[in-house]
Amino acid sequence: MMDIDVEGVEQRVFTGVLPAWDRVEEAVQDAHRRESSATGGTVADYIPALAEADPGLFGVCVVETDGQVHAAGDVEAEFSIQSVSKVLTYALASDAVGHDVIAERIGVNSTGQSFDSVMAIELNGGHTMNPMVNAGAIATTALLPGGNADERWEILHDALSRFAGRRLELDEDVYRSETEHNQRNMAIARLLESYGRLDVDPLEIVDVYTKQCSLRVTARDLAVMGATLADGGVNPVTDQHVVSPEACTATLAVMATSGLYERSGEWLFEIGIPGKSGVSGGILAVVPGKAGIGVYSPPLDDAGNSVRGQRALAYLSRVLGLNLF
Amino acid sequence: MMDIDVEGVEQRVFTGVLPAWDRVEEAVQDAHRRESSATGGTVADYIPALAEADPGLFGVCVVETDGQVHAAGDVEAEFSIQSVSKVLTYALASDAVGHDVIAERIGVNSTGQSFDSVMAIELNGGHTMNPMVNAGAIATTALLPGGNADERWEILHDALSRFAGRRLELDEDVYRSETEHNQRNMAIARLLESYGRLDVDPLEIVDVYTKQCSLRVTARDLAVMGATLADGGVNPVTDQHVVSPEACTATLAVMATSGLYERSGEWLFEIGIPGKSGVSGGILAVVPGKAGIGVYSPPLDDAGNSVRGQRALAYLSRVLGLNLF
Amino acid sequence: MMDIDVEGVEQRVFTGVLPAWDRVEEAVQDAHRRESSATGGTVADYIPALAEADPGLFGVCVVETDGQVHAAGDVEAEFSIQSVSKVLTYALASDAVGHDVIAERIGVNSTGQSFDSVMAIELNGGHTMNPMVNAGAIATTALLPGGNADERWEILHDALSRFAGRRLELDEDVYRSETEHNQRNMAIARLLESYGRLDVDPLEIVDVYTKQCSLRVTARDLAVMGATLADGGVNPVTDQHVVSPEACTATLAVMATSGLYERSGEWLFEIGIPGKSGVSGGILAVVPGKAGIGVYSPPLDDAGNSVRGQRALAYLSRVLGLNLF
Amino acid sequence: MMDIDVEGVEQRVFTGVLPAWDRVEEAVQDAHRRESSATGGTVADYIPALAEADPGLFGVCVVETDGQVHAAGDVEAEFSIQSVSKVLTYALASDAVGHDVIAERIGVNSTGQSFDSVMAIELNGGHTMNPMVNAGAIATTALLPGGNADERWEILHDALSRFAGRRLELDEDVYRSETEHNQRNMAIARLLESYGRLDVDPLEIVDVYTKQCSLRVTARDLAVMGATLADGGVNPVTDQHVVSPEACTATLAVMATSGLYERSGEWLFEIGIPGKSGVSGGILAVVPGKAGIGVYSPPLDDAGNSVRGQRALAYLSRVLGLNLF
Repeated sequence: MMDIDVEGVEQRVFTGVLPAWDRVEEAVQDAHRRESSATGGTVADYIPALAEADPGLFGVCVVETDGQVHAAGDVEAEFSIQSVSKVLTYALASDAVGHDVIAERIGVNSTGQSFDSVMAIELNGGHTMNPMVNAGAIATTALLPGGNADERWEILHDALSRFAGRRLELDEDVYRSETEHNQRNMAIARLLESYGRLDVDPLEIVDVYTKQCSLRVTARDLAVMGATLADGGVNPVTDQHVVSPEACTATLAVMATSGLYERSGEWLFEIGIPGKSGVSGGILAVVPGKAGIGVYSPPLDDAGNSVRGQRALAYLSRVLGLNLF
Repeated sequence: MMDIDVEGVEQRVFTGVLPAWDRVEEAVQDAHRRESSATGGTVADYIPALAEADPGLFGVCVVETDGQVHAAGDVEAEFSIQSVSKVLTYALASDAVGHDVIAERIGVNSTGQSFDSVMAIELNGGHTMNPMVNAGAIATTALLPGGNADERWEILHDALSRFAGRRLELDEDVYRSETEHNQRNMAIARLLESYGRLDVDPLEIVDVYTKQCSLRVTARDLAVMGATLADGGVNPVTDQHVVSPEACTATLAVMATSGLYERSGEWLFEIGIPGKSGVSGGILAVVPGKAGIGVYSPPLDDAGNSVRGQRALAYLSRVLGLNLF
Repeated sequence: MMDIDVEGVEQRVFTGVLPAWDRVEEAVQDAHRRESSATGGTVADYIPALAEADPGLFGVCVVETDGQVHAAGDVEAEFSIQSVSKVLTYALASDAVGHDVIAERIGVNSTGQSFDSVMAIELNGGHTMNPMVNAGAIATTALLPGGNADERWEILHDALSRFAGRRLELDEDVYRSETEHNQRNMAIARLLESYGRLDVDPLEIVDVYTKQCSLRVTARDLAVMGATLADGGVNPVTDQHVVSPEACTATLAVMATSGLYERSGEWLFEIGIPGKSGVSGGILAVVPGKAGIGVYSPPLDDAGNSVRGQRALAYLSRVLGLNLF
Repeated sequence: MMDIDVEGVEQRVFTGVLPAWDRVEEAVQDAHRRESSATGGTVADYIPALAEADPGLFGVCVVETDGQVHAAGDVEAEFSIQSVSKVLTYALASDAVGHDVIAERIGVNSTGQSFDSVMAIELNGGHTMNPMVNAGAIATTALLPGGNADERWEILHDALSRFAGRRLELDEDVYRSETEHNQRNMAIARLLESYGRLDVDPLEIVDVYTKQCSLRVTARDLAVMGATLADGGVNPVTDQHVVSPEACTATLAVMATSGLYERSGEWLFEIGIPGKSGVSGGILAVVPGKAGIGVYSPPLDDAGNSVRGQRALAYLSRVLGLNLF
């Protein structure tokens, strides 16, 4: 079960609007303060670049859809975005190929299996089940426009930067390390290819996918990205249009269904809003129409989700009445 | 993929409140009118009592949390509630044993497998994954209070009637027929027992479960039940308290995760609100804080969901801005 | 991996005949002596009647197809036959319904899964894969002649006694204990029934199956039974015809394929003759045309096979040149 | 079920020796004659080089362990060896690394799944289950000696030629075609690598594996290869030592367990000797101590096994008393 502590924290009811500015500000500061002392979890260590992360870093940021920012702690610390990027490439691909095509090509149903399972692919005759597991995420990146790998990466890099409202940089160390450890993703790409589910070169697409996971972001960036998805695709800080409202709706639905892999149901049960976690310790959550939330704290639980991040989100969900249900 | 037709229907945005009375009324009438002519699907025929259902029956009903009722078509036609009952027994059991116990005992994650799979039980060492598949539903019914099978059934019968706001009757034909065809549920109950996951007699609990599925309801009843879940557990028509707000939140979360079995993700992607379907042709959907929706039309698609029911809900979701995402 | 010790034991080549009487006699005495001191393994304890078995008991018996008997150790100690009975009921059912029907109804392929898996049933749409796992064994017992449960049991009891060459007795303690712990077998029988793969009452057939597993045998009995299968269905001690040569061939083939569940391949790789183990510590092995072997020693390895039994068989296989390959 | 026709063909009993020369000769001619008219099956067409095979070609060859050859039909027609090569590389690797290492590294148990399943790998934490499915075969080829891909191929090419007793040639067309269609094998190799189960470069090893499958052989070659395995590793035609007796025993055991993928049990049930089929229409079978059998006929059944080949072997098994059980 999720390790959260909301004993005595009253669950407020979801309404059409967020509470007033000072209530949100206070909640963000409280969330950071109460969970700063939470221990437990271990920093991901399968590549050196991740293992070196400072376990003490902890940032919480809420960006409202009107552009207001609430920040506490290390919201400017940079880390590689990892799996959180799956959400954004899905929004982009959804925008590019449309609601029906993305649903047919990538799938929208939960696998009930872990993020890097190949079993789910075989049981479904080569169809990926959803874009939040590696197989679906790689197939999603392959749907992005671009005549070759470089173009595809450029387009993707630009778009992810527009989501953040600033130029994101590639973490070369992470990219190199990941490249040396991506045999399983290459197996997945080859398997998709063998089922005729990949129109592009599998090696190139795994490379683009590895790059997208290696972009450096902050908790603040995640919150801005989330607020963009909450706001129908317009970045509320830069006012720049990034994706269509339809793409945002589709993206939030798949996040709700499978944003936390086999723990997705538990997340919805405890927190009640779409979310997506990454192995570097970031979590992006979205309160539709209201706000984006970004949290960062490297120690992960055994399911690979940030310990403090989940606890902070569980607290915010209750005191701000974010739970959709 | 789901067979829906929303070409040209504009997706309105979810806000804090439903549109005004006449807009909702008009949408309900429109949904009924446009989908009346939808063909396709076949009536469930595994027991005679279901096979005899009139495929032409079609009712759509919305009950707002302030008690207002919008109805079109055959909203008073009775049918057995079937799997829709899983939602209500889960709310009751959740109320009875509490948030943490229900999560631990029944599970909240999607299986990615069909409603009567035994494979998911074995792969999880006897743990049921969620209360919307038969294994979890049977285990949920077993958590209800009552010293013996009769007491358990009485308590359950009363509570489901309170959800509907009227005394529900048992369909004896359906109950008898189902009893003759419940070998698989008995296999599931025995399997749960063999894993030590059932504290009560497996034969008795399958009998209570079969009875709960055989209660007669109408589309209007489903809408009232849904409105009760939408309203924090208070029946907005009778003003009677049925379950706690916490139990409602928990129930809506698991409906969102797995209310339509292996198609749950697709449902959330297209319709965007918690829903639960039954093999007799009913669907109960909930717009948190706003309304309950009940639809009834016997012909089912290959996934066992009402064809007209899904189409009507997809239409209502768009024109009334019900999609949570 | 199997825990055997054949370091330095020369593998002789399989020929058309067994070595001379004194070589076999010496090998049996040697096998008993060298493995008497083998430790490790634990006595099955899921029912009291099994848990009370004396872990020190150890018997090795070879019965040649000309009726000669070689015995060492506790070859007259009685124990419940358990899963070894699957082999004999398969031979009987095969005789009763014929080669083609038994192949179609019960299956002959390995599941690659454990003995009481329900997953394999579901993955194969209700077809059992082979008669050596519980599902297939229960379906096999259901194919035996007999107008009702009592007749079926009487016929079965008689036939198993003919295999042994003496009247076998039911172990009432084991039968009662097993009856209290057979929820999983009842789940399996219900599941088969739900797929329409069982023509008889599931409760009755599980009862007959439980009885067949509770018959008391000795290591000598197992060897005689094995010699009967090796000898084309004629008991070489009583000269009584038990089953047809065709039924024996079919039975030895399925033993080779799946007699030791998911370890069947390993057994064939190390020992190279058809075998079948039971949870009480017995193993029956067959050298086609030459001999039957029965061993008994209660401590089991983690796969549920007798530790000393496997070691003794590995030794005999090598020194007597029994390996078919 | 297997499509064989042995109505009225009497099953002779397996003895220590084959029948006399003229009986074997007559049986081979009969087998060819009776099955020449068998229709059904389709030639593999996933690569052009296979699709062009003449469906009318049909050869049957038995080579006794004393070197006598019985041949009927197109026993000199060449075809690519395909999966039959798995048997020979396993014998070589077994010889190279020894009984215990090969058992631990490659596995010996049946998967119960199809030849190119990746699911079995995942369910077993990266362990391959046996050398007759692609995953295990690729891992087996990786165990062969050789400092680099070229050396490995040279050693392998030489050894397979020694098995046949003549220099085998690479079919360049088949090799090129297969190379263009081996995404799934590359996925499997990457997956093995990701589990740390492959010590060599996955691309190189898939290339060597593709080459080994592309060697040209005849039905006569298969029979000689089989006779070499039957004869403890000495080629009875050239009298050349190819592998050790221990390696032969190990190889025949795994052929018996899983030589025909998920139909292995059925094969053992009907034919009763170790066999291995290939997608080009060849089957190699071994009668331990007595003979090797090679058949060739391109039309395959839905399980990918030669239709006429299986029928001819079922006939030979019965009239010559080859069934080990």
